[in-house]
Amino acid sequence: MTATTPLPAGSTIGILGGGQLGRMLALAAARLGMKTHIFCPDAESPAFDVTPLKTVAAYDDETALAAFADAVDVVTYEFENVPAATAEFLAARKPLRPGANALAISQDRLAEKGFLSARNIAVAPYRPVDSPPALEAAITELGLPAVLKTTRLGYDGKGQRIIRAPGEAAAAFAALEPKPLVLEAFVPFEKEISVVVARSADGSVKNFDPAENVHRDHILKTSTVPADIPPALERHAAMMAKAIVIALDYIGVLGVEFFVVTAEGRASLLVNEIAPRVHNSGHWTEAVCLTDQFEQHIRAICGWPLGDVTRMADVVMENLIGDEVLAAVDSAAGVQVHLYGKREVRAGRKMGHINRIAPKTATV
Amino acid sequence: MTATTPLPAGSTIGILGGGQLGRMLALAAARLGMKTHIFCPDAESPAFDVTPLKTVAAYDDETALAAFADAVDVVTYEFENVPAATAEFLAARKPLRPGANALAISQDRLAEKGFLSARNIAVAPYRPVDSPPALEAAITELGLPAVLKTTRLGYDGKGQRIIRAPGEAAAAFAALEPKPLVLEAFVPFEKEISVVVARSADGSVKNFDPAENVHRDHILKTSTVPADIPPALERHAAMMAKAIVIALDYIGVLGVEFFVVTAEGRASLLVNEIAPRVHNSGHWTEAVCLTDQFEQHIRAICGWPLGDVTRMADVVMENLIGDEVLAAVDSAAGVQVHLYGKREVRAGRKMGHINRIAPKTATV
Repeated sequence: MTATTPLPAGSTIGILGGGQLGRMLALAAARLGMKTHIFCPDAESPAFDVTPLKTVAAYDDETALAAFADAVDVVTYEFENVPAATAEFLAARKPLRPGANALAISQDRLAEKGFLSARNIAVAPYRPVDSPPALEAAITELGLPAVLKTTRLGYDGKGQRIIRAPGEAAAAFAALEPKPLVLEAFVPFEKEISVVVARSADGSVKNFDPAENVHRDHILKTSTVPADIPPALERHAAMMAKAIVIALDYIGVLGVEFFVVTAEGRASLLVNEIAPRVHNSGHWTEAVCLTDQFEQHIRAICGWPLGDVTRMADVVMENLIGDEVLAAVDSAAGVQVHLYGKREVRAGRKMGHINRIAPKTATV
Repeated sequence: MTATTPLPAGSTIGILGGGQLGRMLALAAARLGMKTHIFCPDAESPAFDVTPLKTVAAYDDETALAAFADAVDVVTYEFENVPAATAEFLAARKPLRPGANALAISQDRLAEKGFLSARNIAVAPYRPVDSPPALEAAITELGLPAVLKTTRLGYDGKGQRIIRAPGEAAAAFAALEPKPLVLEAFVPFEKEISVVVARSADGSVKNFDPAENVHRDHILKTSTVPADIPPALERHAAMMAKAIVIALDYIGVLGVEFFVVTAEGRASLLVNEIAPRVHNSGHWTEAVCLTDQFEQHIRAICGWPLGDVTRMADVVMENLIGDEVLAAVDSAAGVQVHLYGKREVRAGRKMGHINRIAPKTATV
């Protein structure tokens, strides 16, 4: 297919990753008459329950990857840590959407921050760190507290240490080395918001309303829409998210997390991180938008026009973590439940989410 | 499971029938963390694309039915013409929801009309017909025009003949015999509306707002909500639908079609037919309700509490019939598309539907 020829219904979408995001992508694809083929090394993947087409293999199994590429019309993924070699192998055979470029940038905190900074998109001050002396120099420049992070493979608070006093630096470095690291200035942010944005194959861009996010134990707990921020900041967040997908020549849905920082009475935004995929903070779209983020991603990667992102109600998305899922059956009025079909309830594991809606409040 | 013990997430729902209704039921079940196993004789069934669990076998294949029953936790169906023997065979092994009683009544126009009439639920005047003289007598009693219908297996206008003049009676009888027949008085109805109602295992009942239906070539073309009828008639339709599921001791979603008849300036309702399943005229719920009719059915048959049926916007559902589906990609703002993944586009075949929404108008 060329960039703008829509894939016909009945085509097969290959999805790397079989977790809840892959599962919800597959359900959205089915609503548009598409088939999905899930590739995941874990034989117990939740996404395997929603399609007959699957490959259980490692991401570096080139025989399996080649057969997978042959069986599908377009390839996408539910997680940003797809190995670069896997992405290149597949992209040589079928359209990979979003492209390998977006993966490479978002997999590496340094590359990501460099990419954004070069485009005048504000991020928290940062310094690369490859040795204890480099860490010491970075602390001197950025001040404390600061956060030392691995540049790759961090998520949900894993792969990072807060350094509050100079004496904590050595232990933090020892805990995370020998991985490449980055020190980020600790931003005294007021709140975190995120924007889920989509860009279609023909270059048009639409974003969902910003969500205000609250984390608990480093895991997203709630996303509330509308976010309690001034309208000008909402527009600014949307503009920055749009600038990012345009700069990446991106096709698909992308999540952008922002810190809202207020200095001298004036609120501004820093990009915390970007995720080249559907995003947990966009699950609220299922309840109150005609097109949810999963369908929007499928539309984009299939070369379809983007769907309507109008929000019909106010909403709070709440993740069900660990055994919180057990109470989901007793849901009340105004609540939509989504469960992921995971075999085992484990502490800290995202098992499902609920969307609580309320009549839409007028925005100023 | 007992009537009110909820099936836990991860349970398997068996669905008889692999068409678009079975497919949409399976998608809704997946959102609640359930697995689905589709039983259908047609190897090309659209519902087979959304689950790895399937049985391709005839509905009277008892070996296949027994294995299917063993593999699932509850059995439901997407069509009312499940053979009675199949229903009994399965009901002896696993909970069958809705029950065999609802199937038996709704499969037979005479049984259905008798059931409704006995409960003072108005239907069009009718007479059973088993011979040309019986038809002649029925015509004398009901007048012309009238509609001669097979009592069983009629749908989308199949299995019926309008008789406008006495001279047409013999040909109509000849075209439909030797099947059991029923003559229905031709009701000069103003419009057709329908109500999708659900009853949970613990007996609570909720209905979606009534839809106003327009048919083309005997196939549903549009369902519009709100229906353009007085509020009192809306309430009356809901009350009648609720009375029917209570009388049937029903578990699941049921569709009730009504004729709106105006005589001497006063509108009243006649039940046209009932369908013990999710209903084409309820597809609009996907776009504008927190719980759609498919999830509501899954909730009911799994012993879960019913979900919220509040409508967030006005909506028109339009079936995409035959090659109308080909234009679905170019959908405009305010439109939600749903395609069924059918392999072949055929004239008169339901290929998908769209929901067009508009801001909710206040009801009087």
